[in-house]
Amino acid sequence: MVDVVTFGEAMIRLAPPGFQRLEQTNSLDVQIGGGELNVAVGVSRMGLTSSWVSRLPKNPLGRLLHNRVRQAGVDTSHLLWADNGRLGLYFVEFGAAPRPSSVLYDRAQSSISAIKPGEVNWEEVFAGVRWFHTSGITPALSDSAAAVTREALQAARDAGVTVSYDLNYRGKLWSPQKAQAVQEPLMEYVDVLITTEEDTGVVFKIQARSKGGEKDFKEVAAEPYKEVAKRLQEKFNFKAVAITLRENPLVWRNTWTAIAFAEGKF
Amino acid sequence: MVDVVTFGEAMIRLAPPGFQRLEQTNSLDVQIGGGELNVAVGVSRMGLTSSWVSRLPKNPLGRLLHNRVRQAGVDTSHLLWADNGRLGLYFVEFGAAPRPSSVLYDRAQSSISAIKPGEVNWEEVFAGVRWFHTSGITPALSDSAAAVTREALQAARDAGVTVSYDLNYRGKLWSPQKAQAVQEPLMEYVDVLITTEEDTGVVFKIQARSKGGEKDFKEVAAEPYKEVAKRLQEKFNFKAVAITLRENPLVWRNTWTAIAFAEGKF
Amino acid sequence: MVDVVTFGEAMIRLAPPGFQRLEQTNSLDVQIGGGELNVAVGVSRMGLTSSWVSRLPKNPLGRLLHNRVRQAGVDTSHLLWADNGRLGLYFVEFGAAPRPSSVLYDRAQSSISAIKPGEVNWEEVFAGVRWFHTSGITPALSDSAAAVTREALQAARDAGVTVSYDLNYRGKLWSPQKAQAVQEPLMEYVDVLITTEEDTGVVFKIQARSKGGEKDFKEVAAEPYKEVAKRLQEKFNFKAVAITLRENPLVWRNTWTAIAFAEGKF
Amino acid sequence: MVDVVTFGEAMIRLAPPGFQRLEQTNSLDVQIGGGELNVAVGVSRMGLTSSWVSRLPKNPLGRLLHNRVRQAGVDTSHLLWADNGRLGLYFVEFGAAPRPSSVLYDRAQSSISAIKPGEVNWEEVFAGVRWFHTSGITPALSDSAAAVTREALQAARDAGVTVSYDLNYRGKLWSPQKAQAVQEPLMEYVDVLITTEEDTGVVFKIQARSKGGEKDFKEVAAEPYKEVAKRLQEKFNFKAVAITLRENPLVWRNTWTAIAFAEGKF
Amino acid sequence: MVDVVTFGEAMIRLAPPGFQRLEQTNSLDVQIGGGELNVAVGVSRMGLTSSWVSRLPKNPLGRLLHNRVRQAGVDTSHLLWADNGRLGLYFVEFGAAPRPSSVLYDRAQSSISAIKPGEVNWEEVFAGVRWFHTSGITPALSDSAAAVTREALQAARDAGVTVSYDLNYRGKLWSPQKAQAVQEPLMEYVDVLITTEEDTGVVFKIQARSKGGEKDFKEVAAEPYKEVAKRLQEKFNFKAVAITLRENPLVWRNTWTAIAFAEGKF
Amino acid sequence: MVDVVTFGEAMIRLAPPGFQRLEQTNSLDVQIGGGELNVAVGVSRMGLTSSWVSRLPKNPLGRLLHNRVRQAGVDTSHLLWADNGRLGLYFVEFGAAPRPSSVLYDRAQSSISAIKPGEVNWEEVFAGVRWFHTSGITPALSDSAAAVTREALQAARDAGVTVSYDLNYRGKLWSPQKAQAVQEPLMEYVDVLITTEEDTGVVFKIQARSKGGEKDFKEVAAEPYKEVAKRLQEKFNFKAVAITLRENPLVWRNTWTAIAFAEGKF
Repeated sequence: MVDVVTFGEAMIRLAPPGFQRLEQTNSLDVQIGGGELNVAVGVSRMGLTSSWVSRLPKNPLGRLLHNRVRQAGVDTSHLLWADNGRLGLYFVEFGAAPRPSSVLYDRAQSSISAIKPGEVNWEEVFAGVRWFHTSGITPALSDSAAAVTREALQAARDAGVTVSYDLNYRGKLWSPQKAQAVQEPLMEYVDVLITTEEDTGVVFKIQARSKGGEKDFKEVAAEPYKEVAKRLQEKFNFKAVAITLRENPLVWRNTWTAIAFAEGKF
Repeated sequence: MVDVVTFGEAMIRLAPPGFQRLEQTNSLDVQIGGGELNVAVGVSRMGLTSSWVSRLPKNPLGRLLHNRVRQAGVDTSHLLWADNGRLGLYFVEFGAAPRPSSVLYDRAQSSISAIKPGEVNWEEVFAGVRWFHTSGITPALSDSAAAVTREALQAARDAGVTVSYDLNYRGKLWSPQKAQAVQEPLMEYVDVLITTEEDTGVVFKIQARSKGGEKDFKEVAAEPYKEVAKRLQEKFNFKAVAITLRENPLVWRNTWTAIAFAEGKF
Repeated sequence: MVDVVTFGEAMIRLAPPGFQRLEQTNSLDVQIGGGELNVAVGVSRMGLTSSWVSRLPKNPLGRLLHNRVRQAGVDTSHLLWADNGRLGLYFVEFGAAPRPSSVLYDRAQSSISAIKPGEVNWEEVFAGVRWFHTSGITPALSDSAAAVTREALQAARDAGVTVSYDLNYRGKLWSPQKAQAVQEPLMEYVDVLITTEEDTGVVFKIQARSKGGEKDFKEVAAEPYKEVAKRLQEKFNFKAVAITLRENPLVWRNTWTAIAFAEGKF
Repeated sequence: MVDVVTFGEAMIRLAPPGFQRLEQTNSLDVQIGGGELNVAVGVSRMGLTSSWVSRLPKNPLGRLLHNRVRQAGVDTSHLLWADNGRLGLYFVEFGAAPRPSSVLYDRAQSSISAIKPGEVNWEEVFAGVRWFHTSGITPALSDSAAAVTREALQAARDAGVTVSYDLNYRGKLWSPQKAQAVQEPLMEYVDVLITTEEDTGVVFKIQARSKGGEKDFKEVAAEPYKEVAKRLQEKFNFKAVAITLRENPLVWRNTWTAIAFAEGKF
Repeated sequence: MVDVVTFGEAMIRLAPPGFQRLEQTNSLDVQIGGGELNVAVGVSRMGLTSSWVSRLPKNPLGRLLHNRVRQAGVDTSHLLWADNGRLGLYFVEFGAAPRPSSVLYDRAQSSISAIKPGEVNWEEVFAGVRWFHTSGITPALSDSAAAVTREALQAARDAGVTVSYDLNYRGKLWSPQKAQAVQEPLMEYVDVLITTEEDTGVVFKIQARSKGGEKDFKEVAAEPYKEVAKRLQEKFNFKAVAITLRENPLVWRNTWTAIAFAEGKF
Repeated sequence: MVDVVTFGEAMIRLAPPGFQRLEQTNSLDVQIGGGELNVAVGVSRMGLTSSWVSRLPKNPLGRLLHNRVRQAGVDTSHLLWADNGRLGLYFVEFGAAPRPSSVLYDRAQSSISAIKPGEVNWEEVFAGVRWFHTSGITPALSDSAAAVTREALQAARDAGVTVSYDLNYRGKLWSPQKAQAVQEPLMEYVDVLITTEEDTGVVFKIQARSKGGEKDFKEVAAEPYKEVAKRLQEKFNFKAVAITLRENPLVWRNTWTAIAFAEGKF
């Protein structure tokens, strides 16, 4: 009876306390993070049930992550425990004006990047589930992770589960060419695409023809985004397209806006 | 005018405060460590001058390590700064009886493991230097690191620098067979070998024929160790052999003993 | 498919860091504790499945406790969430010789002490369960908690679940007279009694007639304890009796010994 | 020779460091707080002398509070030390936009709520004192605390001590009806009333007839407040009425304004 | 109605947390200390009343010390607040075997070292007091501090107050010659001398003629100490002499023993 | 081959964490600071080489400072290690509106204030150096420190090193009269003066005749500053004059502006 299943990598986040520089710190605060896991945690906090599928190393860092996921009330019964690979880490240095925040990823050779088709019993995972969510980071991790992503999407479709996909292009993980080649075939299984106008331009070469709104974060001029959403929907037959817009005008001020476009689909 | 040069890997050590379990911690204390670096730091604290040669990634973790090394007064002018590789990490969980301390290494793909012959100007490094120290961990990191170790040892010999070598066998990094094949040819450049009886048995197949002393850490029965040292000296023509003996009878009690054997050589 | 269900109170433990006095501290470390919860956590750490039944206030302290329980992998699906009552607290001051450790309980008016028969669906709780564990603290909390304890024990017996009971007499919660009057009728549902010789003397008036062993914690003279266990078994028809012996000869040295007596029963 | 005596409850304030959620924290910072105690501390910091009267439990938490009060230079010689009751606690979670700060009170069954008339020797307390301050929280704690509040106010009047009273209505402690019934008879002993327009509306049913100023915190339109103050003064014969206005437009921005009305009285 | 008055210097103690080296620390824990203040605090903790006389700079460090003294319940109404001088500091590095603990004093130019006769109204200080305690550190601070010590001792004698004096010789503050010259004339006002055999040898040239006991801290052979106490009593006419013996056999193990000799005096 | 040499005092900075009051804190964060050292650190962070000349006490605090300077990559080979004097300290209390930040200096009797001409081998220090920087704080420390400052400036001129001097008047260290008398003769060795309009008025009696700009920190009206710079240049023959303007409109908002005037000199 799980409402939402998500699939992807999560990492341990290490950050110096009190706005210290990473290169000068004497201690690191320990948190966890990962887009798909964050969705599962958010779903659980809102009172629904969620399960997170991933592959973790059998070591204290894998267990640390596992403990934190359980703490948030997310089901972990479908996790894979691996003898190979490591747990991805990322180091965050919080900014103090005029110095911006920055992130150092140390995620290569993670256990999930070595996941192989057939390891997850997706039929069992999706039994009785309403919604499946994954992102463009998961197939970017490795070719085998891309194959498992495809496997998961197909299984979700077969099980009648609604699928959302956060495009989330990461230039450090793959090229625009590969991102396009791998992901375009996956889109047929996706019901709801979540993206930014920038990412959809990089990956699918679909950008607003009219310009103007994108920097005006106080009052989003919706037309160009609506146009992008419509073209995405036409091309890939999505039920809905959500486009988010995040601006970071000051080190500690963020502004988020989003539109959802679902003309005639729901 | 540097007294001692050392060459090898150093890592960032991350440990939970206050005897917490790694899998339950919310923060990690940051220290640095590495056998050859520790020797350079110790030399500096005793009032001599030392320089540490290694290869670090150009990122905040590389700079963190660099800052700590400089803090200890060790010269870093011969460090290589790399665009590839990461900084090795290790996680220490301090024990609380009856649970022992434990270490989790996360050192694969380090920048120093990708070091290549020709990158370090050893002639310049050894100009005016009295002593060079490295260990069996360095050639264990990769084939190219082994080649650079050989290059360093030859250069030290050419420059008339006394060489010490800590055998320090690490089963997680290579097999006894490879350790022997790689290191036996290096021994001709070594003046002083530092080892344990256990390691010399694993790597060089030289062990005490007589038994008895090894568990009696309160009062070392020196004879078997003397025999091992003598056979090592005969085989490899070392000027001196130092054998250390560490016992850890309780979680927080360690006992160290050492003998140095230098019959007719110094 | 839960192996072990436990039922009882858990509290938040607040303790000054670094051996500070409670009356002088500026911060308190937050842990959780409770005998029956500890059993469920231990079972989970050993790789079996466990579920903990209790009644928590719907507030941030209740959620804090809930998060920690989930972190340990213990099922919380049978927890009751209450609008009345508070979460019990206890303050621990760790000793530094010659000052002993001490505990200050602040547990009155807890939500679980207001639990009422009929609130827990024990039939559902015990479906497919192998073992049920509770303790003498639970019925000591209030008359209604005692009634629910009785209800739980009966339901466990009806469901064919093996029952263990930790006598754990607490003089701050009730008198020996009341402890005896309430608990003797419960013993018919208990398969395994866990106790100390002191507690069984206070509550059931069963003590060793022969003396001698109890202070000799290095080498337990088992006879008197065996005698006590046998008499308990005869009176209450237990399948097994476990007697524990804890000595605390120095502030930071504890010694535990235990015997289990199960003559002809398993 | 004490300038100001105050009477009321103080509690230990426990708050997670660094904007953490209470339900996720691993430590709690320890402070103390209570309206009447805060007044005594403020008086002491300004260089006058003050004494605080209350009733504390004889345990480490009572002593913790006592130590902090003494640290601030407030006289504690009239404190009562109780064998019954506990020390009230409150948990504060500091907000981080868009999440507001919040407070969880855990103050039931406090030692001061069990205070009884005759326990404090008010004649001795008020000898040589210039000013007495208490608040509407004290009589809200219990019927007996209300009786002691009345006793204190009468004794202050008898001793010729000026009396200030902070109305401070707390809906979690009592109803508007009871607040009115208990406090109206106390007002004859009060020289200076401190209140908000909202509280005086709730408790005494006296509110501004004209509207407008209350939300304009940048520039208080004084007329409505002056009208309220005047009506309070007419009804209860106060020497002065102070009305405070606190707005909290952002999570970390507070604005305070106050007017004092003392027409023809001082 | 004060039981005990003490007079002397107190300092802020700054120590790295967690056995860190002072030269490597990133934070310092803040405590206060000073022999005569410690006596006043101990007296207060035992339930008697005490007052501490000293001279503090009017700055935040002086106030920090003041706050801590008040926290301990020690009366501070006779403290002098100075425009000149600083607050003494000392830095403690806690040892970790085999490295011993060490102390770095930074106490020169303290406000109390500039105290002058006539600044303290000793008659008022000693009104109604039972006992006065000071130590050999106070006259060692400066000539004027020595003059004030003499003034205090005379005033105590005049007021009929019993006087105890802890000889506490500090070689960093003055020479044995000066310690003897300054303190011998003070002894006529002293009722109870507290000292070690070593200090009485250095300052008064009185040492045990017989030897043997001083290293045997498990079982003090009292005779030599008794002999020293007797000779001190004969020379200075003390009512009692207390000799303490502290051994520190391991970094974190201390042993204290003491004898008090009061033949025919009390 | 050092780019920049600086000369002056550095101190340990002790500050309570988390906006606590100094007088209430339980720990102090440890940093280091000093204008001339800060310049050397900044030069090193920008990738040039720097060396800092000072005089430190041979104790753990001197070593703490030394370690931090080395950590920043600043050369310390010309430091003097003293048997006399202490290390200066300063205590910073970070403000929280409406309370401003404040600083308490505890720097008297520092080792560098006892520095004497002839102790530093300036010829060796300046060999191959491009730039020397010091400030008006150094000669303010003591007469002998002023003499050494003069010695350094002359040696720099002799060695053909460009000299910058930050006027930095400190009223707590000396009077305007003495500052002028000591520093005017030093200006002949200075190539670049860095100052504020306020300081140049106090020390050299040179202020803008026209007024207006100084409070308008958003948009500096440069004319008056240009006039001051020009007059300074005319009087002392500087190659360049830099005038800085710092405003602190809110507790945690600072605004910096600067102009550099070098008409016809570079």
